[in-house]
Formats: sequence, structure tokens, C-alpha cells
Amino acid sequence: MKKTMKAAVFVAPGRIELQERPIPEIGPTDALLRVTTTTICGTDVHILKGEYPVRPGLIIGHEPVGIIEKLGSAVTGFEVGQRVIAGAITPCGQCNSCLDGVSSQCGGKVMGGWQLGNTIDGCQAEYVRIPNAQANLTPVPDGLTDEEVLMCPDIMSTGFSGAESGEVRIGDIVVVFAQGPIGLCATAGAKLKGATKIIAVETVPARAEIARRLGADIVIDFKRDDPVQKIMEITNGRGVDVAIEALGTQRTFESCLRALKPGGTLSSLGVYSGKLELPLDAFAAGLGNHKIVTTLCPGGKERMRRLLEVVASRRVDLTPLVTHHYKLDDIVAAYDLFANQRDGVLKVAIKP
Amino acid sequence: MKKTMKAAVFVAPGRIELQERPIPEIGPTDALLRVTTTTICGTDVHILKGEYPVRPGLIIGHEPVGIIEKLGSAVTGFEVGQRVIAGAITPCGQCNSCLDGVSSQCGGKVMGGWQLGNTIDGCQAEYVRIPNAQANLTPVPDGLTDEEVLMCPDIMSTGFSGAESGEVRIGDIVVVFAQGPIGLCATAGAKLKGATKIIAVETVPARAEIARRLGADIVIDFKRDDPVQKIMEITNGRGVDVAIEALGTQRTFESCLRALKPGGTLSSLGVYSGKLELPLDAFAAGLGNHKIVTTLCPGGKERMRRLLEVVASRRVDLTPLVTHHYKLDDIVAAYDLFANQRDGVLKVAIKP
Amino acid sequence: MKKTMKAAVFVAPGRIELQERPIPEIGPTDALLRVTTTTICGTDVHILKGEYPVRPGLIIGHEPVGIIEKLGSAVTGFEVGQRVIAGAITPCGQCNSCLDGVSSQCGGKVMGGWQLGNTIDGCQAEYVRIPNAQANLTPVPDGLTDEEVLMCPDIMSTGFSGAESGEVRIGDIVVVFAQGPIGLCATAGAKLKGATKIIAVETVPARAEIARRLGADIVIDFKRDDPVQKIMEITNGRGVDVAIEALGTQRTFESCLRALKPGGTLSSLGVYSGKLELPLDAFAAGLGNHKIVTTLCPGGKERMRRLLEVVASRRVDLTPLVTHHYKLDDIVAAYDLFANQRDGVLKVAIKP
Amino acid sequence: MKKTMKAAVFVAPGRIELQERPIPEIGPTDALLRVTTTTICGTDVHILKGEYPVRPGLIIGHEPVGIIEKLGSAVTGFEVGQRVIAGAITPCGQCNSCLDGVSSQCGGKVMGGWQLGNTIDGCQAEYVRIPNAQANLTPVPDGLTDEEVLMCPDIMSTGFSGAESGEVRIGDIVVVFAQGPIGLCATAGAKLKGATKIIAVETVPARAEIARRLGADIVIDFKRDDPVQKIMEITNGRGVDVAIEALGTQRTFESCLRALKPGGTLSSLGVYSGKLELPLDAFAAGLGNHKIVTTLCPGGKERMRRLLEVVASRRVDLTPLVTHHYKLDDIVAAYDLFANQRDGVLKVAIKP
Repeated sequence: MKKTMKAAVFVAPGRIELQERPIPEIGPTDALLRVTTTTICGTDVHILKGEYPVRPGLIIGHEPVGIIEKLGSAVTGFEVGQRVIAGAITPCGQCNSCLDGVSSQCGGKVMGGWQLGNTIDGCQAEYVRIPNAQANLTPVPDGLTDEEVLMCPDIMSTGFSGAESGEVRIGDIVVVFAQGPIGLCATAGAKLKGATKIIAVETVPARAEIARRLGADIVIDFKRDDPVQKIMEITNGRGVDVAIEALGTQRTFESCLRALKPGGTLSSLGVYSGKLELPLDAFAAGLGNHKIVTTLCPGGKERMRRLLEVVASRRVDLTPLVTHHYKLDDIVAAYDLFANQRDGVLKVAIKP
Repeated sequence: MKKTMKAAVFVAPGRIELQERPIPEIGPTDALLRVTTTTICGTDVHILKGEYPVRPGLIIGHEPVGIIEKLGSAVTGFEVGQRVIAGAITPCGQCNSCLDGVSSQCGGKVMGGWQLGNTIDGCQAEYVRIPNAQANLTPVPDGLTDEEVLMCPDIMSTGFSGAESGEVRIGDIVVVFAQGPIGLCATAGAKLKGATKIIAVETVPARAEIARRLGADIVIDFKRDDPVQKIMEITNGRGVDVAIEALGTQRTFESCLRALKPGGTLSSLGVYSGKLELPLDAFAAGLGNHKIVTTLCPGGKERMRRLLEVVASRRVDLTPLVTHHYKLDDIVAAYDLFANQRDGVLKVAIKP
Repeated sequence: MKKTMKAAVFVAPGRIELQERPIPEIGPTDALLRVTTTTICGTDVHILKGEYPVRPGLIIGHEPVGIIEKLGSAVTGFEVGQRVIAGAITPCGQCNSCLDGVSSQCGGKVMGGWQLGNTIDGCQAEYVRIPNAQANLTPVPDGLTDEEVLMCPDIMSTGFSGAESGEVRIGDIVVVFAQGPIGLCATAGAKLKGATKIIAVETVPARAEIARRLGADIVIDFKRDDPVQKIMEITNGRGVDVAIEALGTQRTFESCLRALKPGGTLSSLGVYSGKLELPLDAFAAGLGNHKIVTTLCPGGKERMRRLLEVVASRRVDLTPLVTHHYKLDDIVAAYDLFANQRDGVLKVAIKP
Repeated sequence: MKKTMKAAVFVAPGRIELQERPIPEIGPTDALLRVTTTTICGTDVHILKGEYPVRPGLIIGHEPVGIIEKLGSAVTGFEVGQRVIAGAITPCGQCNSCLDGVSSQCGGKVMGGWQLGNTIDGCQAEYVRIPNAQANLTPVPDGLTDEEVLMCPDIMSTGFSGAESGEVRIGDIVVVFAQGPIGLCATAGAKLKGATKIIAVETVPARAEIARRLGADIVIDFKRDDPVQKIMEITNGRGVDVAIEALGTQRTFESCLRALKPGGTLSSLGVYSGKLELPLDAFAAGLGNHKIVTTLCPGGKERMRRLLEVVASRRVDLTPLVTHHYKLDDIVAAYDLFANQRDGVLKVAIKP
């Protein structure tokens, strides 16, 4: 086995480079994966732009599909050569937060479960070290391609959690603001949970089209119609049961709140910047029995197992989200395409 | 029976008067109560000041203890002469919201369940009509005084709901911001639900003292200490599981958010005015698995029955909250005392 | 309007007759429906056979689709001539049980919410009185036929509740024992809630076929294979997350328990007779973190509204369950067919 | 450090002996505790009697209070010399069951989380190896004695879980059948969760007395009164919201079911033997919206942390349960006392 590998490294704001780096060493509770496919996340673009700070020199990427190359001495029940995924969030399973059911905030630290490509080297590389491997490796069922399972580690887990944390019930009306990759998965998740009227808000026709395929009954083009007004028409003034925010702006957050029925739930997935206001009329001055829930991508091997079951069951087909393919060698070009949202890109499959 | 009665009427902003008014007529689903004791709520002060709009001429008040004087023809299972309470919120039980478990937002309208002293005549009067009496009258167990049960219709129901909606669990650390009547009941509610460390934030010594009696383990005087900093010291930097906001200001709302552990819940009871911001550092930019839940006072006869059971069980003694007594004839003076928070007033018992 | 109507009346065990009966009078909180379509339930067969006792002279039937003919004086928001359904369970919405969220056990009595065709005259008749009409009438959306909505009042509500009470989650493996009308709806409900592997147990090929269409991924023919053994093979010895019992026998109940993973939930819909045992090996002597939940058909207008939304959304098509059509005049023949399960009957549409 | 230690060993049915055994070796994820206090559980008596099978030669005991003597190389955040407890259940935190929130059934195996004194050597010894130490060690707060925390690992965790799994709410009426150590803790747990009428069923006066101190409002002596009949009188025929079974017999299980209101929950803690029947009249033939939930003692360090908080808060004082003290050298005598329930024994503190 060679000693070094190619890896996408954050060098400075505006600069991610492909560098030659040592193949990671592993400890007793780790695993080493040979990455077969990975992808670029919106968060990675925030890192690239310097909007989300990570230390210079960090290998980026948190959505690995790969093959187990090595296993730490304390890891059991897996085999070298096995095809697996790991979640973007790699909880330890053994801290108070994890044992209390809040594993995304592992260690009791904000976003503590997000390590790959954030606090430790990530997977836009030929190899990646997976920490707490016992809790974080999930075998890929036979017959599923890398592309089919590539959304599980982050996009699908996050998007579905919008519907899950919103506690969507059979017969609910749900609106999903923005149909980027996460919003599309939220739409699919709302359908999976039994929503019977799903309203997607999106202006890009290609995204609107995929939204329909994934479960949207109605797509509102916010450039043509005021979404809140339109939602009130559609619901006869009742409002929606659950509004899912999948963009991260004041405007969509506020529109979610305005679209809710009294007693409704705003399930927030977006990453906000600047400042966020709760308009008191929309928030009923605090007296509307509203809930606002936020969720960071659920991880861990049981979560991944369930999502792989969804893929295997063919209940949901997310392959239309993978619009482009790149070699790891060309990842800088892939970042350029993805960061500038050119050519109808949704997600990019990267293969070392 | 006489034809008219005395009643506290909202005339114009700044003016609530005692007037002679016709005793209410009732329909088939109503009941008429002869009020034996009622009280003034903070919301009534907002009405008095013109900050919360109601129609001039409305009789104010939403916390009735009384005797059934008449029953509508369709109301069964009660008897004239029975001693009862009704909640501040009088849900119909039969609309889609009620049947969906959100009865405070009865009729699918914001605050739709709050009728008494808001959209229909209230109970700061000798008599009051209770709508949907079938769903809203609860007999008072023998041996309980009016003062002992006077908090049930609103303050106790609201305060307890702060702990309930926050889903306080055994072993939780809970902070309650502000120890007015609702905050004090939230403190009592947190204890009833099994919180083992309850931190109350309050500067008035008399309120701090009652807070301790009702369950607070620690009281932070926000004039001496920065509450968030102090909470982080107390919790070794961990933050609280549940933060209950019982005042309705940006500052306390924001402090609640800053006091939370990742994955914690902000349970909001306050009525906000002006504008409300979600500071993104405290809100973890939307990635902290935080929940923000709001609750309008739960009503209905089953809720009242449960609260009366709490009183009867002597698990909680809220009589220290009733600091002053007035005759209905003197209600204008009572408003003056209460609105200006003079003389250590917490709640005022008003007797027609 | 004429004074009398035809109605199916329970006369004595073994005998249900079509009789001429007075058209029902209504009180202020009732509605009178002109029935356009109804059906026969398995419970009605138990009544016919004398296995479930009702008073002789009672009009049978609890699944009405119809037109509002008259409205009680206290009922608002509906119009004479409106096309509606009512649930099999007609909760009052105003008793302690209803206000506590257990409306099927209305009045705190076992099965208290089931009145139609049980404790008051039912809907296998030209007209039916609906009690507590305010809480129990739901308009049928335009464009839906009687046959399309005929399953809502009972079968669909009950079947779906199997998945709901079982708290089926995305990625769950669910088994449904028996694919009669309720089991088929449980299968559809499990799919609607996000189960990704649904195992149906059924031997009748036509029912197996409909099960597959409604969401079953695998059908086990219990005459060819031992269901528990087969389930353990399918799940690699893991067991299912949720097992739904939809028949009401010791054998299926016990098989459900044996098919569960540790920590799994048995959601029971069947009506049992004889005696019911919990085999201790399957029940882990009480130490398996098992749950057993039972549900009586949820009713009320909000429930019906949600189910009608499911039908309108075309997420689920239950019309294949309506295998036969009869005139009310021929209801005795319909009972004969249905009670003897001849000719592949699933459900029979009865039209006055 | 010496090489051998004294330990209580299961030799054969009817025979537990004190033997000299090697001090355990530990692996990278383990810890070695020097036991300072432990106790005997009812389950240990089942082992002694041969009713619950373990392999001959096993060291018994699953309730350790001790000092960390050694830490495995992969265990972080603890220090040698620290005073800690571990739960009776020592979940790994990293298997699918643990990550799915069912850690008592660790590994997806029935009772999989119970290792100490069951599948691996236990803690009735001078030293004990704690597996998955990272997830299972909890420091004891300063100022708490061994006796004060001795109930946390099993009795308190199990007893409280009866109220937690039963989802006891503010204002509930709860019955707890049997007031042995677990039943007493269930009584305390019901009070902590806000039950306002707690009925304990017990005939032994000393136990009845402790039950009252821990929260029971009423104690029914089943030798003088029929508990179900008495409960129905107390509740005016309504039944209880939650019935907790803390003995493990057909009779108490059945009485729980009969005592429930329609829609109520039977929370089962007992270990049953023989066979268990669900009487159909009590079970409403499956139509009563009843729930039956079972719980195996929750473990893991977060659970223990919460229970220690309860002890430290002085909300509950369980020291009256520790009725006798023995040296480890005299453990055979302690078993004799405890197994024969002589001298009013509740729990025995054993000190090496």
C-alpha cells in the first residue's frame, strides 16, 4: 500500500487545493476507508468562501461511500473489504448527549457530532479515517450503486429529518421552502411520513420538476406568486401543519412562520447568517402554540441503515439529484461548478 | 332574581369602569355562573393600557370561580348550585383544532380559545356566561377554598404548561426567567415534572422567597449577576435542559436561548411586544437541535380537573400568590394597585 | 318528506331484517343524514351471530356516506344538502376522555365513542341521526365518489391507526397479520408512515394481490410457511419493529409477539374472543422493552377530514376493497354473502 | 496490588459461595473498579435458586459503587481514584439498538444490556471489570454516601422507569402493585412525575409506611380489601391513568389491567414466570385503547447521572430501603436473609 494520497485541502478562504497527503493512521476505535465516491455539500462551499471557519490545512468532505481498508483493534463486527457508508455526523454513542438521544450534539458541544471535514480530516480524498467506527460504519446492501447511496450520509438524512422533527402526520399539509438538495429530500421525507398535500416553493423549473417526482403536489414559483398568500389560498386560510425551511434566510424563515396554522410547527434545516427575526404578528406574540424545531443531520450507523433501507426499498429515488460526475483530480473544477450553481447542478459525484 | 349586575367594563384605553349591566342571557349550550371570586391578570392590564385591543364596552376577566346559576338545555351532568371553575380558555371541543389536540387555538384561529373577557363578556362581574359549558365547567372538590383554586383557570395552567410543553424530565436542570405569578407556577410545574435543579431568575426578594418554596433550588438576582454566565457556572458549562421564558421580553427570551444546552428546549410563555430576535450565535445558526415551543394557557374541563387534583393533593400550595383582597366594588382600585405593581402584589382576589 | 324508512334491524341472534321504521327525530345537537351509501362491517356479523350483544330492535350499521337532510338548532357551519361522512365512532368532544385525547373511549366508558349501530340506531337505513353533529360531520371533497370514501368511517381509520399507534417510523420493518379489509388498510397505513419493508401474512391470493398493491413488499402464505420463522429469515434474526395484529386470534397475537425485535411494538386491532395469553418466552418474561398497544377506530370530523385528504391525494386507492354492490332492499342477502365470506368478498357497498 | 480477590460465585442452584478469584484483567475499553459497596437484587435470588440460569462459576452482582482502579487505554475523561457508579445495565452505546434508543436491549438481544453478573462477572466482589467504560461510569457527586447512591444502578432506575414508560402526567392517578424495593421506587417516580393520587398496594406495614413517605397517598392492604374494587371506589368508577406492576405475577398483572381506565397504561416492571393471561373483559377484547409497556432497567452513564442528581437534590430519599449491612465476607448470610425476606429486609448493603 502506498503512503500518500490525494486530498482536497482548505488552504485559505477562496482556495481549496488538491494536495498529496499522508494516508491517515488509525487508532483502536477507528476505521480507514478507501473512498470510492463522495460529494460536495453546500457547507463545503461556505468553508471555501471562508464563511464557515475551519483550520487551514484541513481535508474537506463529510459524505463518504467506500471500502473498509483497515479496522482498529477494538472495532468488531466488520471486515476489511466491506463496502460501507458513514454519516456526515459521526457520534461517539458514549457521551452524555449521545446516550440522551441528541447525538448530533455529541459531547454536549454545538454541532459536536460533525467531525469529518470540520474538526478532523474529511473524505474528499482517497482515504479517510472514520472515528468511533463501531458506531459509524454501515454496510451497503448488495445491488445498490455508489450514486444511489451517496445522498444518505448528509442530504437525505438532513432532509428527511425536516419531516421527522416536524412530526408530520398522515393527512398533513406541508410546505417546503426551497428545493435544493436538502429541500428536495425534505419533500421526499414529508411524503414518506404521510403528508397528503405537499407544497414546494421553488423557482428553478428543473428543481420544481424533481420536487414533483419526489412528492410535491403543488409547486409555487416565488418569483410569480407570493408564497404565503398562495398557501393561504390553497389551504382556505387555514395554513399548513408543518413548514420546513431548507434555505437559511430571514425571508424563508419568516414565510414559514406566516404560512403556519395556529399550533403548527416550523421545522428548520437551513444554516442562517446575519440575523434572524421572529416577526411578532406571524409568531402570534408568542401565543400561537407554535413550535420551532431545528435539526442537525442525524448520523450514526443505525440512522444510515434505515436510510439505506429506504433506498433499497425503492420508495424514494434520489439519483436525479446527482447531476454531475467528476474525478477527485478535478475537484477544484467541481467546486467551481457547484459554488456557482452552474449548469443546473444539484449534487456532484466525486470519484478518487 | 335581579335583572342587572355590576361588571368591570373596558371603556377606553386607560379606563376600566364598574358599570351596571344586564345579567347575561344563556343559550342551550351555555351556563350562567354567579361569580364568587375572580382575579386580575397581566393581560387585563395590557387591555387597560390599550396595548391589547378589545372592543369598548366589553366586560373584562377570564378567571372565574363561581356557582352554577343556570344551565342551557343541552348541558348535562351538572346541577344548578354546584360550585365550579372554568378555564380562561373555553374550547368548544368540537372544531377541527380542538379535535386535533390544539384547543387553545379553537376554531383554527390564533388564540381562538380565549373568549372570556376577550371576544365575549368576561367574569369580573357578578355573573358570567360560560360558552360550551359542557366542555368547560369543572366542579370544585369539597374542602377547597376559592383562594386555593383561583389560580387554576389561568396562572397555574399557563405556568405548568411551560414545564409540560418543555417536556421536563426526571433529572433535568431547568431555568425559569422571571418569577411573577406565571413564572412561579412554571417553577412549581418544573418541580412537579421531576426537574432536580431549578434555577429561578428574579430580583424581588419576596418573589425569590416564594420561588424557593415552590421548588427553586437556586435564585439568580439578575441585578447582581449575569444570569447566563451564572447558569453556565452552575451547570459547569453544560447549559440547561429546558429554559422557561415567563416575562415576554427580548432580553429574557435571548437569555433563555443562551442558557440552553445544545439540544435544549426554550419553552416560551411570555407575551412579546416590539420585535423578537433570534441571535444566531445563541441559536447555533439553526444547527443546535434547539426547540422553541410556545403555549397558550390550556383550558377545558379535563385540564381544570387535573389542576384541581393538584391543589387537592397539597402537592403545590399557590395561596401565597394571592397577596391582596378586594371587593368587586373596588376593582378600579385593585387595577390601580396591580397595574402599578405596588405593595408586593402578586395576585388580587376579587369578590363580588 | 315521508315519515318512515327502510332499515336493517337486529331482531335476534341469527336474524337481521329489513323493517319499516320511523325516520329519526333530531335534537338541537344532532343532524339527520339521508344515507347514500353504507357498508357492512365484521362487527355487524358478530352482532348478527349474537357474539356481540346489542338490544333487539336496534338499527345496525356505523359507516355512513350521505347528504345532510336536517340540522339541529345548535349545529353551525354546515348546510342542508351538503354531502358528508361521519365516523363509526362519534365522540362528543366535550367529556373528560375526549378532552384528554382518548375520544374513542368517549365518556370514560369502554368503547364509549361507538354509538351508531351499537347503543343508538345506525346507518344501514335510508336515514340516520348523527349525535354531536358539530364534532362528527365532514364534507366530502368534490370529485370523490361514495365508493372512494366509503372506507373512511371505519376500515381505513382503524387500519391506519394500527400503523399510527405502533409509531411506525421511516425505515421500519412492519408485519401485518391478516389482510382482510382492516389488515389491508394497516398495510397501506404502514407504507404511508414510511415503513420500508412491509410483510403481509395472508393465504388468500386475491387479498395477497391487493396487499402488494397497497404496499406489502413480501406476502407470507401461512399455509405454506411458518410466519415467525419466515420473518426471522427475512430480517436476519432481528425481528420486526412493529407487528400489527388485524384478525383477533391467540395465534396471530402470539405470532406478532414472537416476530418482534426486543424493544418492538405490537399494535393490536383485532377483536379477541375466548382467552388471550402472553407466552413468556415471546414476551421476554416482561423484560424485552416490548409495547402492546390497542386502538379502537379513531373518529370525529378532524380524523375524517384527514382521511378524506388521503383519498383526495390519491396516495392510497382503497376502491379495490369494494368488491360487491347491493341495494338496501337486498341487505339480508348481502349479510349472507359477507358473513360467509363467499365470492372473494372484501367489502359490500349498500345503497338505499 | 494483590492478584486475587474475594467474590460471590454462583456454583450451582442453591449455592452461592465466597471464593478467591483473580482480579479481573481489563481491555482498552474497560475499567476496573474497586467495589466499595454493592447489594443483592431479587434477580440474584432467582439465580441462586436456579430459576434464572447463569453459568456456574460466574461472579454475581450488578449494582456497583466503587473507585476507579484502572482505566483501559481508550477510555477518556475519567481518572483513577475517582468515585463512581455503573448501572446494572451497561450498554455499549454503539450498536443499532443503542443508537436507536433501546439500550437495555443492547446488541438487539433480549436483555442484551444486562451483562454484569449475568453474561460476565459481576460486582459482588472486591473488584469488577466494567465493559464499555466510556459509556458506563458516572462520578458520584461530593457529599453523597455509598448508601445514598446504592439504589441508582438498578432499583431506582427500574422503579422510576415504571412511571416514565407509563408516561405519568401532572394530575394522574397511579396505582403501584407491590411495594418491594422496585415498587417503592415506582411510587417515588410517580410522585416525581406529577401524579397527584398515588395508590400503593401492599400488606406489610413497614413497606406501607415507607410507601407513604415516598409519595403514596393511599395504601391498600390486599389482605383486607380487594384492590380493584377499592381502586374503583377511590376513583368513582373511573379507573387509574397508569397502573404499575412491580411484582411479576398473573394476579397483580391482571389487577393492573382491571384497575385501568379505558385508554390507560399498564407499565410492567415485574419478571413473570409460569404463564401470563390477558383476561378479555379487563382488556376490553382489545378495544379499550389500553397500552401495556415493559421496561428493563435503563442504564448508561447519562441515566446514572440523572439519578444521582435526584439523590443530590434531596427530592427523594431512598436510604430507608437499605435496612441491613453486611461485609462481603458474610454475603452468604446476607443471601440467606434476603432470599427468605426475614427481619423486614428491603435491601442489604454489602461492603468488601
